[in-house]
Amino acid sequence: MHFGHDDKTNELLAKVTAFMEAEVYPAEAVFKEQVEQAVADDSWSFPPIVMEIRAKAKAQGLWNFFDPSDHGAGLTNLQYAPIAELTGRSIQLAPAAFNCAAPDTGNMEVLSMFGTDEQKKTWLEPLLAGDIRSAFAMTEPQVASSDATNVELSIVRDGDEYVINGRKWWITGAMNPDCKIFIVMGKTDPEASRHRQQSMILVERGTPGFEIIRGMRVFGYHDRDHGGHAELRFTDVRVPASNIIGGEGEGFAIAQARLGPGRIHHCMRSLGIAERAIEMMSKRASERVAFGKPIAEQGVVRDWIAESRVKVEQLRLLVLKAAWLMDVAGNKAAHTEIQAIKIATPQTVEWILDKAIQVHGAGGLSQDFPLAEWFAGMRTLRFADGPDEVHKNALARAEIKKWA
Amino acid sequence: MHFGHDDKTNELLAKVTAFMEAEVYPAEAVFKEQVEQAVADDSWSFPPIVMEIRAKAKAQGLWNFFDPSDHGAGLTNLQYAPIAELTGRSIQLAPAAFNCAAPDTGNMEVLSMFGTDEQKKTWLEPLLAGDIRSAFAMTEPQVASSDATNVELSIVRDGDEYVINGRKWWITGAMNPDCKIFIVMGKTDPEASRHRQQSMILVERGTPGFEIIRGMRVFGYHDRDHGGHAELRFTDVRVPASNIIGGEGEGFAIAQARLGPGRIHHCMRSLGIAERAIEMMSKRASERVAFGKPIAEQGVVRDWIAESRVKVEQLRLLVLKAAWLMDVAGNKAAHTEIQAIKIATPQTVEWILDKAIQVHGAGGLSQDFPLAEWFAGMRTLRFADGPDEVHKNALARAEIKKWA
Amino acid sequence: MHFGHDDKTNELLAKVTAFMEAEVYPAEAVFKEQVEQAVADDSWSFPPIVMEIRAKAKAQGLWNFFDPSDHGAGLTNLQYAPIAELTGRSIQLAPAAFNCAAPDTGNMEVLSMFGTDEQKKTWLEPLLAGDIRSAFAMTEPQVASSDATNVELSIVRDGDEYVINGRKWWITGAMNPDCKIFIVMGKTDPEASRHRQQSMILVERGTPGFEIIRGMRVFGYHDRDHGGHAELRFTDVRVPASNIIGGEGEGFAIAQARLGPGRIHHCMRSLGIAERAIEMMSKRASERVAFGKPIAEQGVVRDWIAESRVKVEQLRLLVLKAAWLMDVAGNKAAHTEIQAIKIATPQTVEWILDKAIQVHGAGGLSQDFPLAEWFAGMRTLRFADGPDEVHKNALARAEIKKWA
Amino acid sequence: MHFGHDDKTNELLAKVTAFMEAEVYPAEAVFKEQVEQAVADDSWSFPPIVMEIRAKAKAQGLWNFFDPSDHGAGLTNLQYAPIAELTGRSIQLAPAAFNCAAPDTGNMEVLSMFGTDEQKKTWLEPLLAGDIRSAFAMTEPQVASSDATNVELSIVRDGDEYVINGRKWWITGAMNPDCKIFIVMGKTDPEASRHRQQSMILVERGTPGFEIIRGMRVFGYHDRDHGGHAELRFTDVRVPASNIIGGEGEGFAIAQARLGPGRIHHCMRSLGIAERAIEMMSKRASERVAFGKPIAEQGVVRDWIAESRVKVEQLRLLVLKAAWLMDVAGNKAAHTEIQAIKIATPQTVEWILDKAIQVHGAGGLSQDFPLAEWFAGMRTLRFADGPDEVHKNALARAEIKKWA
Repeated sequence: MHFGHDDKTNELLAKVTAFMEAEVYPAEAVFKEQVEQAVADDSWSFPPIVMEIRAKAKAQGLWNFFDPSDHGAGLTNLQYAPIAELTGRSIQLAPAAFNCAAPDTGNMEVLSMFGTDEQKKTWLEPLLAGDIRSAFAMTEPQVASSDATNVELSIVRDGDEYVINGRKWWITGAMNPDCKIFIVMGKTDPEASRHRQQSMILVERGTPGFEIIRGMRVFGYHDRDHGGHAELRFTDVRVPASNIIGGEGEGFAIAQARLGPGRIHHCMRSLGIAERAIEMMSKRASERVAFGKPIAEQGVVRDWIAESRVKVEQLRLLVLKAAWLMDVAGNKAAHTEIQAIKIATPQTVEWILDKAIQVHGAGGLSQDFPLAEWFAGMRTLRFADGPDEVHKNALARAEIKKWA
Repeated sequence: MHFGHDDKTNELLAKVTAFMEAEVYPAEAVFKEQVEQAVADDSWSFPPIVMEIRAKAKAQGLWNFFDPSDHGAGLTNLQYAPIAELTGRSIQLAPAAFNCAAPDTGNMEVLSMFGTDEQKKTWLEPLLAGDIRSAFAMTEPQVASSDATNVELSIVRDGDEYVINGRKWWITGAMNPDCKIFIVMGKTDPEASRHRQQSMILVERGTPGFEIIRGMRVFGYHDRDHGGHAELRFTDVRVPASNIIGGEGEGFAIAQARLGPGRIHHCMRSLGIAERAIEMMSKRASERVAFGKPIAEQGVVRDWIAESRVKVEQLRLLVLKAAWLMDVAGNKAAHTEIQAIKIATPQTVEWILDKAIQVHGAGGLSQDFPLAEWFAGMRTLRFADGPDEVHKNALARAEIKKWA
Repeated sequence: MHFGHDDKTNELLAKVTAFMEAEVYPAEAVFKEQVEQAVADDSWSFPPIVMEIRAKAKAQGLWNFFDPSDHGAGLTNLQYAPIAELTGRSIQLAPAAFNCAAPDTGNMEVLSMFGTDEQKKTWLEPLLAGDIRSAFAMTEPQVASSDATNVELSIVRDGDEYVINGRKWWITGAMNPDCKIFIVMGKTDPEASRHRQQSMILVERGTPGFEIIRGMRVFGYHDRDHGGHAELRFTDVRVPASNIIGGEGEGFAIAQARLGPGRIHHCMRSLGIAERAIEMMSKRASERVAFGKPIAEQGVVRDWIAESRVKVEQLRLLVLKAAWLMDVAGNKAAHTEIQAIKIATPQTVEWILDKAIQVHGAGGLSQDFPLAEWFAGMRTLRFADGPDEVHKNALARAEIKKWA
Repeated sequence: MHFGHDDKTNELLAKVTAFMEAEVYPAEAVFKEQVEQAVADDSWSFPPIVMEIRAKAKAQGLWNFFDPSDHGAGLTNLQYAPIAELTGRSIQLAPAAFNCAAPDTGNMEVLSMFGTDEQKKTWLEPLLAGDIRSAFAMTEPQVASSDATNVELSIVRDGDEYVINGRKWWITGAMNPDCKIFIVMGKTDPEASRHRQQSMILVERGTPGFEIIRGMRVFGYHDRDHGGHAELRFTDVRVPASNIIGGEGEGFAIAQARLGPGRIHHCMRSLGIAERAIEMMSKRASERVAFGKPIAEQGVVRDWIAESRVKVEQLRLLVLKAAWLMDVAGNKAAHTEIQAIKIATPQTVEWILDKAIQVHGAGGLSQDFPLAEWFAGMRTLRFADGPDEVHKNALARAEIKKWA
């Protein structure tokens, strides 16, 4: 057992830290202004500053860290974890800057693992190059999304084409006009066995019958900077049969393969959010004076800061262990650990953000600080890929079985 | 000791309940659309539907319930409490419909108690009539607002005028162009004793030098329906000397007089929010099916619903007792109880809203349900009139003293 | 609505307060010594000091407050509530001193409501006089006691007698040799409908075949002062047929009738424990110095004290409301409120005791202070009459039904 | 980074697991009976079964795992951690069985690091051999023990002797007659600088003037099996000058050196308690039927089990990381991590035990299961070596300083 990072990770951490300090943190103020402007312009594209920083990062080879293949940085999950955490410290800017933002990362993984050569050439390459963006359309408004077998969108073969009908919502990134390609999950065979009914199919933006209805908001946020969360309608949308990914009936398996890394990446980045919040809370507590002394002198504020530190240290180690297990024993072997971090992360980081907000006073809830927006994002993680309660239930069932 | 409402209250409750069912709840959908449109139009006025319902309520004499005088409904705090709770069930519509919305209610109380005849004629009458709206400008961005003696805005006598310079923020209602009058707290005599330095002064919208800088947002919400929360700048703003309220040095005393009822009104309405959330959570749990059964069958969901009921019953009784104490022994005698409900209300109702959101799935965080917006509003109560921690500290000090 | 006590209550409160100060609190130290001695002597009787105080209380007419009939103090539940709370402040001494201790109170109620004249003469009169003690034997080791229909002890008619076989545990008071009479719940007709199978029967201490196996301990406490918690075995125990209470098949109904008041009395007394703990915590915080200042100056300690006050005020009002509802509308109408206080009381008071212990340092866990023993007693309330979870489940079911 | 144990650890784990299964778990029932008997006999010695198992363990070389030197097992902290956790699964039997029980381990470390050759020969050797037991006397009843500089017991040089006067309490192990040697902390020079006033001195049991006053109880438990917790009085106790450890003024430094490993050992063992509790809770939930189904089917019970697993996984990793840091960078470098586990362990394990008790019903609080006794022990850890609040305060101070 050993708790230090390897040399490769440390070197990369140094580079990414330097880039964060030189390019990312100083850009946060401009980014905020540009996002405000985007509201006025009703724009959903990446703000210009993001494009500028992406260009610099790409030029320096700080790119595609998430990608374990030789197209990317070739990092293991364990090596990627602290890098991803670092990007979480500027969650709206940094993951996008390094082409490591969800949902593109998961989509690239899907195409990389299950795509045909043609699919890779047409969609994976521009995604890896950062030229386009993508979306993953699974959740549907009318069914409980906690069970992937519930999807109702229909995909019907008709000659050389598939015809798609149905609705989706909470499709992150879809409002961004640069989001050119959608991986859409639906049912090709409602008569097949429970986990063989679903397929994944590629739908290009602008295909006739494909409509973007509206952007879902989280609390009052549009999340324009990462392309919002769209509600979509598919009405007799026709795509070439070659757009199917991995074959009919493979949809559930692909979804499962995509979820493991997706979940842990969220958790890794969330650690960065927590660390930034602790830093902000500590600084604010030192600077803000009330009743004649810095609020850092107040016992309750200290209690929050101490608990935050104690919580985040524990959480990080579990995320790292899950990453290591995925590396050495596979995603399936890390199932319990991935569930555990999926459960622990939002509750922990939400708690820390709540306290950081409280230390900032009413301003902490406003546009003057990013804390409330981070809280909103973290709150969604208690639903993303199924509500916490579903995961706890499954984890407990496995635990009880161990002893039965 | 007796836990039933008196006849007057029960009769009024019946009338208000009927009005809510006939006019308010059915209007919620239209209201929501109009608020969405207001964003597009950058409007901050009351949505038209509110004006329509106000007219109907006023015509039926369902008006100014908050006002204990004979201008209003002549209710005690204890009688008003369940009415205010009822309006909290449709928090964005109902308080405004009955001319019982903050901050107007508190401002009318200030004018009623401390205003000159001329001030009453010019400002109180149109407020009571619902013809204009008002704001209360106390909080400042650069100082901890938890201590009312901290205000820095300067009010300097110059002949027959006062000259005002300074900044304010979180001035609720101020973005609404119908908000015609501002009660502004500032310092007239920085040399006076600590609680005699402050004065309240009336500033009319549009006075030269008075600027509305921007609207503060709460979790991304503009709160347009109740006039937002403005940041204001006063630059050599000149008002007639007769605009002072109650005389120089009275500002702190007036602020204190205003706070007691203001706090308890918030708490009363919050009970209505909690009740509506429990209702929504219960209904949703009955209707939504996951893994083959209504989620109302899940033990964890039941636990949330039971805890919600147990919490809200306790909270309501304490709010009612505080109201009763204010009636029979005065606001000062009810000090501890008012502090206690100020502390207990947001933490309790926030907890309930969090669970109601979780039962609604991701939709619970979106614009499709009001729960996230209510959560955001409730979260601000942990700061309003000073953060919880200040109140807990004071309450504990008094408790310890009892036994020393 | 009115939150003040009536004159009768206030007069009685004054008398009981005076008695507590003159006789009860000063006796606590002696009581503790005598309980220690009881361990050495393996005695389970009331310590002598309790008998002395009982005699004084009885002589002053401070006796049987719990009894709403004209044998007792003739108090309503609402009038009894603050008196019971007062006795809770010295929970090991005061309820016994006034002949208001469980389980005797509930047993007297059963005999009073359902007993024959002979049963009343033989058992109720000496209990009201405080000459003997009693026990209520319902819980069984081998079945989940959360459902009263589960009892398995068999009661079989044989001529003029009933023959009893079975086991019971957690029979409070039974170790005390003065506990002369047991109300035993068992099955007389396993074939009857679910709530008609059970009966209650009187078994005198010393009846052949009746054995006291051992005392159950709670944490490490024997609870000798209130007669411990016994495990009992009944082997062909024969009692006269006239010992049945209320008739065969009435057991379940009697148990239900007994539970309502039993639960609320526990809650009333628990408020007194909480108040005493807050007082002790506040005093200790003032007196104990660490790192150069009283720990009352520490923000975290203040937070605990404030939260304790806020919690206990809310809890008390709900207990009082439940008592009032029982008085004006009957125990059935107060069902939800009784469930609510059954759920809220132990979790609230346990929380307060935990903090009071922490303020007392390690001594707070020891025999030098009563806090840990109170905590242990409060912890048992989360099981008594069924675990919290059962009550929450039922309460939630009713809440959901309201909205379905 | 790597999360697997090394071969040495895995081999030892296998051996200790086998021994636990062959000797320890089967002996738990006998042990319990013997402890009950010890109460009757007022005995404080190790129960005979412990002596038998110790003999077997020693014979198999399963001995002194805690000791990193070549007298012991030569394990690093990281290697010892999972072994210690394993012994925590039978916390009353296993640590003693392997001569790894507190406070002997810490005392042996003190003698090993700071003792003279003669002290080692006289006291360390029989302790390592398991022939005697020892105690560490630091805490005093009259001062806040959270600050080691507070000790008041006086140690005065008088010729070739030291004369000791003062009081101590909570001296674990001291009631056991086999506890032959006491390491006593006191002041040799009240005029010296703050951390140079204290010294450690050896006092043999039976030295004139040395009295054992009484055993402190924890939640009613005597903790006879590990020698109780004594209150001691020293009245002109005279010991040879050679009994001083490390020299006058070294007391504070020795105390600090002892605390780091002491704390982490407690945390390691506590993980074993938590694991055993999860196992018991899971098994009981599978077996116990209520309302027609195993309580493992209840959502709330599953929620507890899932949360327990998620919590304990995080806690363990932080304990292991702290151990690793101590090994590679020294105890000082691991300061924050040791504080963090000191804070996190009791609150986590207490929570798990509370839920495990609830799943066991009232029996869970009684002598029929070890859960309540474990809870009591865990509760003391929130005070041991200073209350949590002191540690949180210090940890927060350091965190804030990082960002100032």
